[in-house]
Amino acid sequence: MSKISPLSGFPELLPAQRAVEREVIASLSRTFELHGFANIETRVVEPIDRLAKGGEVDKEIYVLQRIAAAPDAKAELGLHFDLTVPFARYVLEHAGHLEFPFRRFQVQPAWRGERPQEGRYRQFTQADVDIVGRDELPFHHDVEVMSVMVDALRRLPIPRLSFQFNNRKLIQGFYRGLGIDDVTDAIRVIDKLDKLPADEVATMLVERVGTTPEQAQRCLDLATIRVGDSSFVERVRALGVTDELLDEGLEELAAVIEGCRAVAGDSVDVEANLRIARGLDYYTGTVVEIFMAGYERLKSVGGGGRYDALASDGRTTYPGVGVSFGVSRTLIPLIADGVLSGSRPVPSVVLVALNTEDDRDASAAVATALRAREIACETAPAPAKFGKQIRFAERRGIPYVWFVQADASTNEIRHQVKDIRTGTQVDADPSTWAPPEHDLRPTIVSTVSTSPHDQEENQ
Amino acid sequence: MSKISPLSGFPELLPAQRAVEREVIASLSRTFELHGFANIETRVVEPIDRLAKGGEVDKEIYVLQRIAAAPDAKAELGLHFDLTVPFARYVLEHAGHLEFPFRRFQVQPAWRGERPQEGRYRQFTQADVDIVGRDELPFHHDVEVMSVMVDALRRLPIPRLSFQFNNRKLIQGFYRGLGIDDVTDAIRVIDKLDKLPADEVATMLVERVGTTPEQAQRCLDLATIRVGDSSFVERVRALGVTDELLDEGLEELAAVIEGCRAVAGDSVDVEANLRIARGLDYYTGTVVEIFMAGYERLKSVGGGGRYDALASDGRTTYPGVGVSFGVSRTLIPLIADGVLSGSRPVPSVVLVALNTEDDRDASAAVATALRAREIACETAPAPAKFGKQIRFAERRGIPYVWFVQADASTNEIRHQVKDIRTGTQVDADPSTWAPPEHDLRPTIVSTVSTSPHDQEENQ
Repeated sequence: MSKISPLSGFPELLPAQRAVEREVIASLSRTFELHGFANIETRVVEPIDRLAKGGEVDKEIYVLQRIAAAPDAKAELGLHFDLTVPFARYVLEHAGHLEFPFRRFQVQPAWRGERPQEGRYRQFTQADVDIVGRDELPFHHDVEVMSVMVDALRRLPIPRLSFQFNNRKLIQGFYRGLGIDDVTDAIRVIDKLDKLPADEVATMLVERVGTTPEQAQRCLDLATIRVGDSSFVERVRALGVTDELLDEGLEELAAVIEGCRAVAGDSVDVEANLRIARGLDYYTGTVVEIFMAGYERLKSVGGGGRYDALASDGRTTYPGVGVSFGVSRTLIPLIADGVLSGSRPVPSVVLVALNTEDDRDASAAVATALRAREIACETAPAPAKFGKQIRFAERRGIPYVWFVQADASTNEIRHQVKDIRTGTQVDADPSTWAPPEHDLRPTIVSTVSTSPHDQEENQ
Repeated sequence: MSKISPLSGFPELLPAQRAVEREVIASLSRTFELHGFANIETRVVEPIDRLAKGGEVDKEIYVLQRIAAAPDAKAELGLHFDLTVPFARYVLEHAGHLEFPFRRFQVQPAWRGERPQEGRYRQFTQADVDIVGRDELPFHHDVEVMSVMVDALRRLPIPRLSFQFNNRKLIQGFYRGLGIDDVTDAIRVIDKLDKLPADEVATMLVERVGTTPEQAQRCLDLATIRVGDSSFVERVRALGVTDELLDEGLEELAAVIEGCRAVAGDSVDVEANLRIARGLDYYTGTVVEIFMAGYERLKSVGGGGRYDALASDGRTTYPGVGVSFGVSRTLIPLIADGVLSGSRPVPSVVLVALNTEDDRDASAAVATALRAREIACETAPAPAKFGKQIRFAERRGIPYVWFVQADASTNEIRHQVKDIRTGTQVDADPSTWAPPEHDLRPTIVSTVSTSPHDQEENQ
């Protein structure tokens, strides 16, 4: 077959890069589990009508058809484009077998046929964490699920993240208190502050939404509030709007900010940013977007919020709150930029050298003894000169080479292990020798200075 | 939305069942890594012409199309139906960045649009382990990769597995030595011994392949040899056929059998079964099929072998040897039959009870202290009566409930932890208390008596 070129939008990782992704996923999963979240996986396909978002089927869905299907057969299945739609369906389908509130995390790929660009891929992995209730879901779960994601992401050796929170009740209450009728439309216009200057947005509020210039100004005043603590409450109050829903939103947002600040430590920013709306999605309370310092061009690397109706079967409604982290969106640019790399492309800590092909069993016995104590290793593929076997280990990043030699004078077997980075070679016993903890597994090498906790794990 | 019915052929696991699958995948991955195999993941799509097998595109491939594509647009991508085709493409595409021999394992879903039945799904997860060389790959890697899979599978608490090996050189050499011209066609006929009685197969050999009745009889004699050690060598020799390729095949098969027996211990059968051919695939040496006791109806639960040309770009050829284990094909029937189950559907070991909503911070502080020592836990969702909170834990299989109470007389905080299975309640310190090791994570509960090693892990 001919030379193969990559498929645009379907990035693939080399083994050392994949080691980075696996360590990140393992770290996130460990944190989610410590907080009592169970892992699930959903099938990758959903009926196409279920993939409809707000009644409209996303133009970028990939549909599936058996190659042997009749040419005019109607496609019925599509690949999921996020993990929320399949999770909502899973909850409805399996509700009778789940305990509520149901806490789950899910790390899987999703697919969108969009134009590939940095941070936007046709196949990409996400890590989602959600809590879903039956009929009701107390607000404290908003604080919980958001702090769990803060706790998970603060452990990663990546550039500084900023969790920017808002609350749909706060926005809606404020607009309602101001006397604006079409709250949804106003939110949609305010969402354009990312792309348009403030005065143009104000003009649109007046012309499209029908606000007075004074109302428009106060909407802008609200949208520009961005602080790292709960002082936003006073600043909103100072705008002189009163409304019950606004009060509720202020209280909820303050609780989320304080709860997340308590776990964020020094490595993650937590802010109230009253411009965040997550425009067209069906959030009903807490909303969040996550940004990464120096990578603002990726837009958000994660986001989520509260849905009062994550799923419903007509009789029962399942409210949910959750947040999603873009694993591919974050890691692939960081790996491409050399910010993250894997310490080696193989799990092996030790290459057991081979004297002659006839000695393969002796070398394999050493490998078996090391593996019995959870030390990953491999036997050299061929009895080449030792210099060549050492270079073989070097090219793979394997830090130690083990030699098994019969002493010429005594004819006793002598075991030695060489740290090929330093050249130090010492006598060793295969049933007791162990490498230092940090050599045991491939680790993430990061150019980002991380918290002491992470440095410990990755040095 | 209306009631949801499952999608035939796309099985999904409940959380406790998924815990079984995760533990199995973690156990397999751990063993593969101990043997120096690196994990990779490939994108799920391949160009349709690359999914062609022996020049013919599998009728059961799912093709992919953007929903917005023109109605007459030609589909170019399909979902992979195994992990070998994408691995071969990955090797060709990334060869410049890989070190050979390249040892990898891969655990991912694959898709086939076949008629769903027990053990046959439209989406199913496989675990593959392969070694691939550039230009050449010494035979000892056949022994290595097969013993690695034996070592990985013998650790699973599943019904007894049987690895049944053969060698294509042995078959081809034998047939050639017998004077049969069309070896491939003869193999294809012998492969029907599964379904047809021996005399019918003999007749087909005479009529279709053009053998003499005596040649046909010796083909059948070969195909009925099945032994658990290398005594097959003598039995083949006794059939009186001589051929160089036959000698090579006998030697290789004996080495594979002895190598795998050395790691199989008491929990896996290793046999030479000279009827195994893996008919239509392009194997050139070692072949293997794996069967599970009591589940013969699933046919093989895994298989693989040696390809002298796993991949080729015209200039360079990449020989490979590997074996695949059907994770879904094995686990889903075992879970459905109650042979395997998860010890609980949540990772939490401890539910921290809640006195009043105002005490949520105190309970959360206990949870944080436990998590700091890797003990998974969750705080009760509501300050219900303790009996109700204990039942909440019970329904989730959480073994411990933690109580934080102010002593009425001294006003001091008193911590207690209750094992709700035994009712034993003791004073405990959140900064030092730990559950017994076997309670720490959800484990696999198996009705199969397993090796002492597994019992330790799963009791």
